[in-house]
Amino acid sequence: MNTAAAVADFRRYPLVQALTAATPLADRVQVTWADGRVSPFHHQWLRDNCPCPQCVYSVTREQVLEIVDVPEDVGPCEISIDDAGHLCVVWQGGHQSLFDPGWLRAHAYDDHSRAERLANKPRRQLWQHDLKLPVFEYQALMVDTDALLQWLLALRDIGLTQVRGVPTEPGSLKQIAQRISFIRESNFGVLFNVQSKADADSNAYTAFNLPLHSDLPTRELQPGLQFLHCLVNDADGGESIFVDGFAIAEALRQEDCEAFDALCQIPVEFRNKDRHSDYRCLAPIIALDALGQVTEIRMANFLRGPFDTSVEQMPRFYRAYRRFIALTREPRFRLVQRLEPGQLWCFDNRRTLHARNAFDPNSGARHFQGCYVDRDELLSRILVLQR
Amino acid sequence: MNTAAAVADFRRYPLVQALTAATPLADRVQVTWADGRVSPFHHQWLRDNCPCPQCVYSVTREQVLEIVDVPEDVGPCEISIDDAGHLCVVWQGGHQSLFDPGWLRAHAYDDHSRAERLANKPRRQLWQHDLKLPVFEYQALMVDTDALLQWLLALRDIGLTQVRGVPTEPGSLKQIAQRISFIRESNFGVLFNVQSKADADSNAYTAFNLPLHSDLPTRELQPGLQFLHCLVNDADGGESIFVDGFAIAEALRQEDCEAFDALCQIPVEFRNKDRHSDYRCLAPIIALDALGQVTEIRMANFLRGPFDTSVEQMPRFYRAYRRFIALTREPRFRLVQRLEPGQLWCFDNRRTLHARNAFDPNSGARHFQGCYVDRDELLSRILVLQR
Repeated sequence: MNTAAAVADFRRYPLVQALTAATPLADRVQVTWADGRVSPFHHQWLRDNCPCPQCVYSVTREQVLEIVDVPEDVGPCEISIDDAGHLCVVWQGGHQSLFDPGWLRAHAYDDHSRAERLANKPRRQLWQHDLKLPVFEYQALMVDTDALLQWLLALRDIGLTQVRGVPTEPGSLKQIAQRISFIRESNFGVLFNVQSKADADSNAYTAFNLPLHSDLPTRELQPGLQFLHCLVNDADGGESIFVDGFAIAEALRQEDCEAFDALCQIPVEFRNKDRHSDYRCLAPIIALDALGQVTEIRMANFLRGPFDTSVEQMPRFYRAYRRFIALTREPRFRLVQRLEPGQLWCFDNRRTLHARNAFDPNSGARHFQGCYVDRDELLSRILVLQR
Repeated sequence: MNTAAAVADFRRYPLVQALTAATPLADRVQVTWADGRVSPFHHQWLRDNCPCPQCVYSVTREQVLEIVDVPEDVGPCEISIDDAGHLCVVWQGGHQSLFDPGWLRAHAYDDHSRAERLANKPRRQLWQHDLKLPVFEYQALMVDTDALLQWLLALRDIGLTQVRGVPTEPGSLKQIAQRISFIRESNFGVLFNVQSKADADSNAYTAFNLPLHSDLPTRELQPGLQFLHCLVNDADGGESIFVDGFAIAEALRQEDCEAFDALCQIPVEFRNKDRHSDYRCLAPIIALDALGQVTEIRMANFLRGPFDTSVEQMPRFYRAYRRFIALTREPRFRLVQRLEPGQLWCFDNRRTLHARNAFDPNSGARHFQGCYVDRDELLSRILVLQR
């Protein structure tokens, strides 16, 4: 890339289409590409995104210019396409900007370009009981960045993976979690020990069955990834169960739209409290993004507060809640598997609900360790590996 | 509290009004209180919230019952108010539930009770340049839980505090942050060092002026609290500047509603990237809660990606963005103060925007340390201290 057009980024922007024309209009420059696409760029936008070393600090690649320091009616006095194919703008007042055509195309905001970017976003794959479980080998993940990337993409797009060949020393979970990034701490520790305890501060630390749930729905941001690492599993029972919460939400949308809407609209308070903490979070069970896509499931029956909605809505909400839970119990959605020592589950805690059957603590020892890594860290790691 | 009516909580629910009557209706029980208020409770809701040791595990105080295991048309065969004033329900099938009247009143969902709870929520205080800065003494915060609670309430409701008398050894920030809870780690570390560095991976680590911003707008959840602890400050310049982002948002709503709406509706991509990480977060600058109240400001001009909205919206968005930034520059909003060694700022990073004037690294040393603690931890700590 031409250094004069250095961009405020660590990515590369290959030339997809050449610039063939740049036409000045009243408040914008309209460029035409070799494939005929026309992209308007407002003067404000172009001036704001000037990548020159005066506007962007070259060491951090962060912007120094603040657009509010440029007159609102800033305009070019000269526009051209140079021999290297860059868009060159000389601004009133003399400042010059040079735009790389690959970068410009990647950030064009005409309808066509925006729709194209949306269509190229990663797409998740919904699954049911018959998922071909994505399984990865510990050793490969620890040394091979290609294997690591494949694992992370499976986590992003499928949301459930198993890793085998993990050392069974307590604490060894840390090393593989840190292949992604730092661990997200909680009041249960950096690593938490899933064992039956007399003084349990969560039903997770009993031998009870645990219904399908996400961890820490009691926090504003539920942990993105959850790891569960089996060190010892000599007890009868305790099988792991997983469902794709997004698949269940989509089934509910299809089969009972009114129930789906209630779970998107009416918030529930989740509570996690013991002698030292008192977490509360009010949020709907199903969260949607701006396009109406399901982005998050928040659910743990044992961490709910009493429902608090109007007298009119209460029966509607109970009907919806029952319907959702009933779906999580349908065999078509449930993947059931017992975890053996040296294996771990890693899954999208905000999508893939997990449960465990009751186990018999008198029949043998059972010790799992777990930890969390946030979705930001997963996505950042993927972007760096893909550079 | 009667153990038979033990509730799934660690709070106390004093008796506010006695129960005077309980009337069975088709799908609910309607209770009347001594002050005449009438509260309906649906059968589902009552059965779901049964606090008996069969339905709630007494050690964790977490629910074991799943309401989906109770018939949808469950109803009582007997309702009464016992001598201790509890609501007693004997269900078809024989299960019995006993509800403490203090707890029941605190969770009633008739319109009046819900409005009362809403009105009793903590209220934040908006501020401008003339804020009487809440200042606290380190020693008191470390030993006195009352002083600690006052500090945390100021953080919750005002969002800007100063602490004095803090040791100036590097790392001593940890002790005071941990008076609240564990520290939220980021790619910049558990503690981050704010110093001018040749190989800066953020403009924060230069001697440049930094415009008003929130930290880590590039993460889905911006850190709740930010600490900035002054160890050494011998350099000329570098004054701290704070504005109440909520006050500015409310001023914008008053003065330019269209600009306010644009900042609530049109998302911006914030980016934080270096050789090892690549964080991106798409979210609006102003976030509102379900009642239309401003709950979060997300802003850092130097961490923005190029705006990506439709050609029609782009000029409207630039106008709104310029208007917001112009407001942050108005003296009526800006509190300016130089931090001295042994002092620290602690503020609501999702509300109170902070800036720093440029400093002259040749005029003397300047070393601040910072860290983050999440809002969940602040609120939990307050609730525990208030028990």
